[in-house]
Amino acid sequence: MNAKNLSRRRFLELVGAAGGATAVYQTSMALGLMQETGAPANLDLLNVSRAKKTVVLLGAGISTLNIAYELERAGYDCRIIEASHRIGGRVLTLRSGDMVDELGNKQICRFDDEPHLYFNAGAARIPGHHQRALHYCKVLGVELEIMANDNRRAYTQEPDAFGGRPIQKREYMADARGFMSELVYKAVDKNAFDQPMSNEDRERMLQFAISFGDLDPNGLYKGSNRAGYATGGFRKAGELKGTLNFSEILNSNFWRYGMHFAETEDWAAPLMTPVGGMDNVVKAFLRKLRTPITLNAQVQSIMLRDKGVDIVYNHKGKQHMITADYCFNSIPAHFIAGIHNNFPKDYAAGLASLSRGHLSKIGLQMSKRFWEDEEIYGGITSTSQEIGEIWYPSHGIFKQKGIVLGAYLFGFSRRTRAPSNFFEKMTPEERIRFAGEQGNNIHKGYSSYIENGVSIPWGRMNHMMGCGSGWTDEVRAQYFSRLQNPEGRHYMIGDQISYHSSWQEGAFASAEFALQDLDKRVRAEMAAMTGAS
Amino acid sequence: MNAKNLSRRRFLELVGAAGGATAVYQTSMALGLMQETGAPANLDLLNVSRAKKTVVLLGAGISTLNIAYELERAGYDCRIIEASHRIGGRVLTLRSGDMVDELGNKQICRFDDEPHLYFNAGAARIPGHHQRALHYCKVLGVELEIMANDNRRAYTQEPDAFGGRPIQKREYMADARGFMSELVYKAVDKNAFDQPMSNEDRERMLQFAISFGDLDPNGLYKGSNRAGYATGGFRKAGELKGTLNFSEILNSNFWRYGMHFAETEDWAAPLMTPVGGMDNVVKAFLRKLRTPITLNAQVQSIMLRDKGVDIVYNHKGKQHMITADYCFNSIPAHFIAGIHNNFPKDYAAGLASLSRGHLSKIGLQMSKRFWEDEEIYGGITSTSQEIGEIWYPSHGIFKQKGIVLGAYLFGFSRRTRAPSNFFEKMTPEERIRFAGEQGNNIHKGYSSYIENGVSIPWGRMNHMMGCGSGWTDEVRAQYFSRLQNPEGRHYMIGDQISYHSSWQEGAFASAEFALQDLDKRVRAEMAAMTGAS
Repeated sequence: MNAKNLSRRRFLELVGAAGGATAVYQTSMALGLMQETGAPANLDLLNVSRAKKTVVLLGAGISTLNIAYELERAGYDCRIIEASHRIGGRVLTLRSGDMVDELGNKQICRFDDEPHLYFNAGAARIPGHHQRALHYCKVLGVELEIMANDNRRAYTQEPDAFGGRPIQKREYMADARGFMSELVYKAVDKNAFDQPMSNEDRERMLQFAISFGDLDPNGLYKGSNRAGYATGGFRKAGELKGTLNFSEILNSNFWRYGMHFAETEDWAAPLMTPVGGMDNVVKAFLRKLRTPITLNAQVQSIMLRDKGVDIVYNHKGKQHMITADYCFNSIPAHFIAGIHNNFPKDYAAGLASLSRGHLSKIGLQMSKRFWEDEEIYGGITSTSQEIGEIWYPSHGIFKQKGIVLGAYLFGFSRRTRAPSNFFEKMTPEERIRFAGEQGNNIHKGYSSYIENGVSIPWGRMNHMMGCGSGWTDEVRAQYFSRLQNPEGRHYMIGDQISYHSSWQEGAFASAEFALQDLDKRVRAEMAAMTGAS
Repeated sequence: MNAKNLSRRRFLELVGAAGGATAVYQTSMALGLMQETGAPANLDLLNVSRAKKTVVLLGAGISTLNIAYELERAGYDCRIIEASHRIGGRVLTLRSGDMVDELGNKQICRFDDEPHLYFNAGAARIPGHHQRALHYCKVLGVELEIMANDNRRAYTQEPDAFGGRPIQKREYMADARGFMSELVYKAVDKNAFDQPMSNEDRERMLQFAISFGDLDPNGLYKGSNRAGYATGGFRKAGELKGTLNFSEILNSNFWRYGMHFAETEDWAAPLMTPVGGMDNVVKAFLRKLRTPITLNAQVQSIMLRDKGVDIVYNHKGKQHMITADYCFNSIPAHFIAGIHNNFPKDYAAGLASLSRGHLSKIGLQMSKRFWEDEEIYGGITSTSQEIGEIWYPSHGIFKQKGIVLGAYLFGFSRRTRAPSNFFEKMTPEERIRFAGEQGNNIHKGYSSYIENGVSIPWGRMNHMMGCGSGWTDEVRAQYFSRLQNPEGRHYMIGDQISYHSSWQEGAFASAEFALQDLDKRVRAEMAAMTGAS
């Protein structure tokens, strides 16, 4: 038998015979089979039905649902413990009658009971390279549709720029591109660079600038129909708008925080979303799962043992204990310090070092889809006002009503970058009023269309107290690998343990890493047993 | 009664009493009430039920359906004559079993009979500012969905650039923006302009360039995750791709023909399309219309009379004549010379001066949605090969099969700009083979997925012989107004008589102009009768 013909499994069996489980595990890690390709791994988990492996999963969000789904199929005996009253974590779609469990501000969603009147208060978008999320949508039968994200007909609005007037993004962006291209043209035309360009490149660069900015043949920007015509274009000749003042554009802030967002990997068109609400992903997992899920069960203790993990949780005032061979833990890291545990110091320190995001969203039921009268069919208006963004629904076009995302606060001020939690401190009614007032600066009569609303300040959501995890570069360098890898038989998981926090793909990627790691060690154990037998 | 209280109608009645119908008509035109706002006019047509006005409409495309719909509601007695076997004109959605009436190449569409397997061979997209098209979708109950158009994960591919390798648009575009921004940064940094910038603007401009191109803090472009990571980003840190060579980008042609297309007014995201096929617009009109439509009826003569228009047409080998008070004519202008008429010379010359577009499309049924495995969910790949574009369907995500637009030829070569009609001369089988071969240069195994296809070279479609109208600036200046306005009681209409040829919005805009003009003259006639009575 030569090396080429030696199967991975047979090789690991030989290692196991020589050095036991630990040697197999370390060897399989060293083989570097975990290279990330972006594509979901072909999990091909070893079926352990005969071995009776037990698993407890903490939290009922995407990462644990994913792991339970895969482990069930591989014959593991799973159990999920969830602290809150619901399944899905930050995959939260609100509809008529839903309860929002904000600490001190329980809200009931009062949207009309109609299929198109829902609000994705957490995860909302799936880009095409989030292959794991898309893989599960595919295999679980979650129907997807394209959603509008970037919309050049939506607005940018800043109190301190252009007299506070909302400006269509296409106007701002066409003019900014135009003036910038004019600068390039001039500089190239004058050979204003240290390293000379070839004459051919120079000529091409001039043409490139003209094409990039829609300049006139002399390299001047005099407006473009990319900004939308002022009038005409159909029955009569189109007339260009006057251009914005470039200095005023530079003095505004949209180019700092929003102009290029659709250039980014995650937000470039097209974006997808499940037809009818993002929680269809959760529902699709639940249709397949047999794993019992205990709701309203708060974990009080996590004790790592040689051969497993002991979990104590509180359910309806009583303490219960579960012992399992393995534990997958998606509890927000900043909660761990409040749970009794026997974690090594550095592991606990890593968990304590993660900060927690404070995004807030508000969903407003509008009596009329007034934005469609303004040529806006979905997408996002961006403002430097505190509300940050307005999202218009791109499903349910032409229906009477729609749910608008009326504010998307990031926990800091767009203008000063200072942390800000004023929104969390408001009552739900105050938030609706606040969103309405700032919305009035963008759409005339905006607040008059608001029928009701529901606000989700993630920093105050019961059993969550935040969203996403903040990794500074230092913390990442010091702790990421430590936390991604298991401590004994305990795996920290969730979008928090990924390079894509606040995205479902982060949760799926974390689950995938943990599943592959578990599978390797279980294979190693089995191989070691085989070798020893 | 002062001028302020004088209603438009009363004023026109007074003019009518003094000068008759012609004076009223000219006066109402002079009042300039036809300013184009982009929004559909509130037509508010005078109801003429009592007056028994008859109208004949030539051609059964969007413009005549629109006019018949509005005139029916205003009590006109309408009739539509259509030369071909079908209704809808260039709103053509092909499904299983449909016949494509190409001269000499009749084809039957062999797609599987499934709701998602359709091909919009003509009109395919509706942007948010096409308010007339959207207005009719709304009032007629045509359900719309967002479609992917620009897709940064689709490819640009040129035989003569980057070794013929397909490159994700996001990579090309991020790198082009980056290098261009680096040039701007350098030029501003060196103050390389005649007119000095203020220090503040200069500093902002440097920051703008950094933000625009995702440069490093020193103004250098070293790659960006806007191009997509080479690896990682989820389970491990993302690693940037190497950058393309800027000189090679400049030497390629995508920036000339495709890179900025999503910046343009008509193609910027989001685009919409009717759920299930664009011909739902046609079907929606037909659900409302009572106007009889005679198919397979070729017009042979159009004679303008003082009080009406006489139409002679051939139907099943027999000649028939209709006389109507008004005629709306959407027959392609280049056909008019072959129809007996008594048009004034300049009017006929104007019609003869319009060239006709030669776009071709091909729809391919693919056995597998292989593009979704490449992270592509809808949108367009752009190539300088003759096929021009590949469109991936963004509806029916995750289904087994899909209909791909496998070629979109513009009647000239993207590389040489020379007119080209080689595709029209091929047999349908040759076209499928040709599209497959060029597609193989973009997707590995592309042609192996092709199950069948249907090609629509508009220049050879029976009773059409082209699509859209070509207006040179000279022809536009000389003839547009002449042709947009009626000759006697004969109106030329259709997207050909608009500034938005090849778009449904052009057809709707033309219809709107004609309807308003008709209404004015009818009101004037009525007013003159009142004044004279």
